[in-house]
Amino acid sequence: MSQPSTRAIPEPTLRRLPAYHEFLKKLRAQGKTLVSCTHISEALGVYSTQVRKDLAVTGIVGRPKTGYDIVELMRSIESFLGWDDRRSAFLAGVGSLGSAILGYRGFESHGLNIVAGFDTDPGIVGTEVHGKTILHLDRLTGLARRMHVHMGIITVPADVAQDVADRMIAGGIYAIWNFAPTSLRVPDNVVVQNENLASSLAVLSNRIANREP
Amino acid sequence: MSQPSTRAIPEPTLRRLPAYHEFLKKLRAQGKTLVSCTHISEALGVYSTQVRKDLAVTGIVGRPKTGYDIVELMRSIESFLGWDDRRSAFLAGVGSLGSAILGYRGFESHGLNIVAGFDTDPGIVGTEVHGKTILHLDRLTGLARRMHVHMGIITVPADVAQDVADRMIAGGIYAIWNFAPTSLRVPDNVVVQNENLASSLAVLSNRIANREP
Repeated sequence: MSQPSTRAIPEPTLRRLPAYHEFLKKLRAQGKTLVSCTHISEALGVYSTQVRKDLAVTGIVGRPKTGYDIVELMRSIESFLGWDDRRSAFLAGVGSLGSAILGYRGFESHGLNIVAGFDTDPGIVGTEVHGKTILHLDRLTGLARRMHVHMGIITVPADVAQDVADRMIAGGIYAIWNFAPTSLRVPDNVVVQNENLASSLAVLSNRIANREP
Repeated sequence: MSQPSTRAIPEPTLRRLPAYHEFLKKLRAQGKTLVSCTHISEALGVYSTQVRKDLAVTGIVGRPKTGYDIVELMRSIESFLGWDDRRSAFLAGVGSLGSAILGYRGFESHGLNIVAGFDTDPGIVGTEVHGKTILHLDRLTGLARRMHVHMGIITVPADVAQDVADRMIAGGIYAIWNFAPTSLRVPDNVVVQNENLASSLAVLSNRIANREP
């Protein structure tokens, strides 16, 4: 398998790769060994030519007539998305959403290892949530630096999210997954992925409004 | 305030409106009464001309020199996004993510009222989670029809998501917020908003890979 470039991969392609992997897992569980672009296309509602292009970014080459070996294709996606290479992360804000993320086992198989949670609530600090130790927020910066943790997940309320981001960046964290419904101001060398549930709800509500007479 | 058309509003605009609202709430808490596009632009990092365009979809008109009245602008956004008009929803799948969503108080002020949760686990059915009754999944279709619930939230594992979607649609639900990492096959008159955390993680991982030397 050739080593593909990770540059300039379109976001829609990146977003579809986990869905292909999910579908392949289902096929493998059914005892299948080979799959074609057409089959994936029909199951997921993505044009067959687009499926071929998407899979090509992982460096895999399908065999004419027979298609892809399912196990090989799954490994190719896993390797491309870095799922075989665990990345340590800190999570700040152990409320209901933060707890859910700490307890979501799916992330571990997707290369994400949340090593600790941080909060300021004395009722939570010092406890364990889904097997992860919860520490005081004041320790985040120092520990991130000492443990070489470079990824942070923010699940605090909007009004304290910037302070938490600043603490993370001060500790050497340069990749932030932000679930707080607010924009973060970060230096150019820090990447932020915003996950805004209120925004998604706004889109859905508008689509409902358009649908109704 | 004129009644704006809800058709063909660009998704990025819809996604920014809750962020503007969040920022306005902060200003109001600071005792401010007026705000300009420039001020919003600088705080949120969106071009000032874009801010003006985004706000215009809600039907509000800014006053030259003085800007917008903050309370009026907040009401205009709330009304446009339907936050003043509660929509009932059922949630299926009361695992860690489903529980977090049931307990997330933010949705209530955003026009979403989750009236009940559904699951098949006998250990959960009949209990209350964050004050919401959890019923058996077999009752979802009938209750949706009887209670005229038109929105469903799916937080079950990928392999049962289609079955849950089919049950929702059979009960008259036509708007689905799908958190399961899989594509749903639905009739043309049903709208689906996919929320795929694994996809977002794939995008973030790729951006990290590009950033590293």
